[in-house]
Amino acid sequence: MSEPTRTEAFSDGVLAIAVTLLVLDLRVPVKNTLHGTLASALAHEWPAYAAYVTSFLVIGIIWVNHHAVFKLIGQVDRITLFLNLLLLMTVVAIPFTTSLLSEYLLDGGPDARTAALVYSAVMLAMSFCFAGLYTYVARHPVLLAEGVDPVAVRASIVRFSAVGTLLYIATLVIALFSAPLCLVAHFVIALYYCFQQIRRAG
Amino acid sequence: MSEPTRTEAFSDGVLAIAVTLLVLDLRVPVKNTLHGTLASALAHEWPAYAAYVTSFLVIGIIWVNHHAVFKLIGQVDRITLFLNLLLLMTVVAIPFTTSLLSEYLLDGGPDARTAALVYSAVMLAMSFCFAGLYTYVARHPVLLAEGVDPVAVRASIVRFSAVGTLLYIATLVIALFSAPLCLVAHFVIALYYCFQQIRRAG
Amino acid sequence: MSEPTRTEAFSDGVLAIAVTLLVLDLRVPVKNTLHGTLASALAHEWPAYAAYVTSFLVIGIIWVNHHAVFKLIGQVDRITLFLNLLLLMTVVAIPFTTSLLSEYLLDGGPDARTAALVYSAVMLAMSFCFAGLYTYVARHPVLLAEGVDPVAVRASIVRFSAVGTLLYIATLVIALFSAPLCLVAHFVIALYYCFQQIRRAG
Amino acid sequence: MSEPTRTEAFSDGVLAIAVTLLVLDLRVPVKNTLHGTLASALAHEWPAYAAYVTSFLVIGIIWVNHHAVFKLIGQVDRITLFLNLLLLMTVVAIPFTTSLLSEYLLDGGPDARTAALVYSAVMLAMSFCFAGLYTYVARHPVLLAEGVDPVAVRASIVRFSAVGTLLYIATLVIALFSAPLCLVAHFVIALYYCFQQIRRAG
Repeated sequence: MSEPTRTEAFSDGVLAIAVTLLVLDLRVPVKNTLHGTLASALAHEWPAYAAYVTSFLVIGIIWVNHHAVFKLIGQVDRITLFLNLLLLMTVVAIPFTTSLLSEYLLDGGPDARTAALVYSAVMLAMSFCFAGLYTYVARHPVLLAEGVDPVAVRASIVRFSAVGTLLYIATLVIALFSAPLCLVAHFVIALYYCFQQIRRAG
Repeated sequence: MSEPTRTEAFSDGVLAIAVTLLVLDLRVPVKNTLHGTLASALAHEWPAYAAYVTSFLVIGIIWVNHHAVFKLIGQVDRITLFLNLLLLMTVVAIPFTTSLLSEYLLDGGPDARTAALVYSAVMLAMSFCFAGLYTYVARHPVLLAEGVDPVAVRASIVRFSAVGTLLYIATLVIALFSAPLCLVAHFVIALYYCFQQIRRAG
Repeated sequence: MSEPTRTEAFSDGVLAIAVTLLVLDLRVPVKNTLHGTLASALAHEWPAYAAYVTSFLVIGIIWVNHHAVFKLIGQVDRITLFLNLLLLMTVVAIPFTTSLLSEYLLDGGPDARTAALVYSAVMLAMSFCFAGLYTYVARHPVLLAEGVDPVAVRASIVRFSAVGTLLYIATLVIALFSAPLCLVAHFVIALYYCFQQIRRAG
Repeated sequence: MSEPTRTEAFSDGVLAIAVTLLVLDLRVPVKNTLHGTLASALAHEWPAYAAYVTSFLVIGIIWVNHHAVFKLIGQVDRITLFLNLLLLMTVVAIPFTTSLLSEYLLDGGPDARTAALVYSAVMLAMSFCFAGLYTYVARHPVLLAEGVDPVAVRASIVRFSAVGTLLYIATLVIALFSAPLCLVAHFVIALYYCFQQIRRAG
């Protein structure tokens, strides 16, 4: 077992890179292939901007929550490292699913729904991994930092895990009907987490 | 509330990646598609180099100022985290707007002005977010580090916020007339900040 | 000689970026070039996902082991820095070999075996570099951290070095027969390391 | 003035990303465009691998030297920050010049020499910036860390600055005759720095 400092540093690095790679999904229209003005070509790219903002907020909130969970942790063992790695594996996939969703968002047909399903499924997988990490730590009080109440942490497992999981299952259902609505749902969930966090901070 | 160390580390990571991704805007001319020599093809790419240098300086200065602001901060709450996230969201977009501006800089027509407007608008948004972060921290003395004078910080809100905002609004106006001039304006602003900082350091 | 903190930070950065760049190997099918549905196009890309998961685990385990080795180190000299640099050079190549393997995995012919050989050869090179780093540190007790038993570290050189080297030589042999089987072998090795680590942690 | 910790962290981040982005210069041959086998296509790409190894070593050595210089520094002022930023600006350009050199290395004609000149010129600029940073710090003893001898630091300015500058000017001259020879020269210089460092460490 060891101190969580380097695990946090590595995770911070991965999260910072994943969030920054989102910019690669914003593509510059090639000069001589424009139909019409650049302004209209950029306006046409709004799904990419909407997906960028949403995924940026989501990864930002993952970082805030990751930060909050690791403040509870005093020691990391190998299973914690492995669960954290699985979580990061889902987060790193987000720039890919974001690009996929923005490419097919307005397609209208089954392909748009496929893209929305993939986007939501990766978010659900991320939520599961986060719940797994939290549950594992909560059930092994020896891993908790000094001064952290094991009973309170344990009592919050269900709340911590269930909300995210249920919300992302809901987005999977919405994805079956409408990709744009699914993106709106992810944006609203991200805002909910921001405001909930801000309210808690009050 | 928590210590700002990990927020700084995450922000440093994002800023370091954003500034390094600028290199992806420097494109290698493909071997068999050259018209004329490589030297002339590279010389033709000067808008990309000019935009690279300008954006590199701008993000570098953002990092220096971010550093300076966080030296005032002793505690971060969730709203600080959220405002910081918004700021980073605008900075991460800079490699995209840089690429856009260098692609259309010499286009001459309305597309060049569109690219310059987008470049300036993202800088203005960045400036607003920075002003928002600074104002929030300045108005909540509990967040300030020990030994920092809350009155002095509060008194500097307008100066800190207004200069950048006015300068970037000016670039928006210039963008309506000339994209190359707009890039020059951004370069001069970056130099101004460098020298102002160096003078202060004297 | 100096403390290993900044070497670890640099290595963490490189490992975090290498693992995150793996996402660039996940390509979004371009909208108007699809033959059939997006779902079938994505399903067709399964080698890319399999290679992503495998390489992510491998780099993750490299990070865990790097972490473990550096916990033994109290001082780094220039040779340690240089050996560490060689190790990082092989790790940074992994996103490239991953992309190569996923492009040619199902090709069936000699090209698939070439891709699998390159993938395995880079892993073997990584394993050699890791063994070299460990052996060098183990043979120079002055570099070990306080409280670390030099005899125990020295006694573990062969075990630490031989297992990885032998396993990756085996994947080279498998690559001569079947690329998909070779990827499975790398995945199993990664799982073996995960479980071995978890067992040790018990 | 402030402590150099965060400047080092930011620089480490930029150097780690720049060195890792070199992998993007290693391109996977597209499946259906191969003339002959994948093995021969990869063998044909050897300039990219040679350039990758060389640039990786160069950036690695920059990192080692950056580390060494910052160990002398106790305080950073704004000019130090600015000079460090200029240095990073040249380093971040290295993945671009590496890609350029590997694309044109075997071209034989004037384009190969242009690419080698650009590669060497960026290295020379990097060397100048490093010399500038070192000279500035050496001439301002107030910036030095406790226990560092200002006289010794000052006495080493010429040695520190001149060697790199002269070596890189030599590569510029070589670039006028042969691009492959120029790459060999850069590789030899990198090895020289590695061995010189290792010798010093003995």
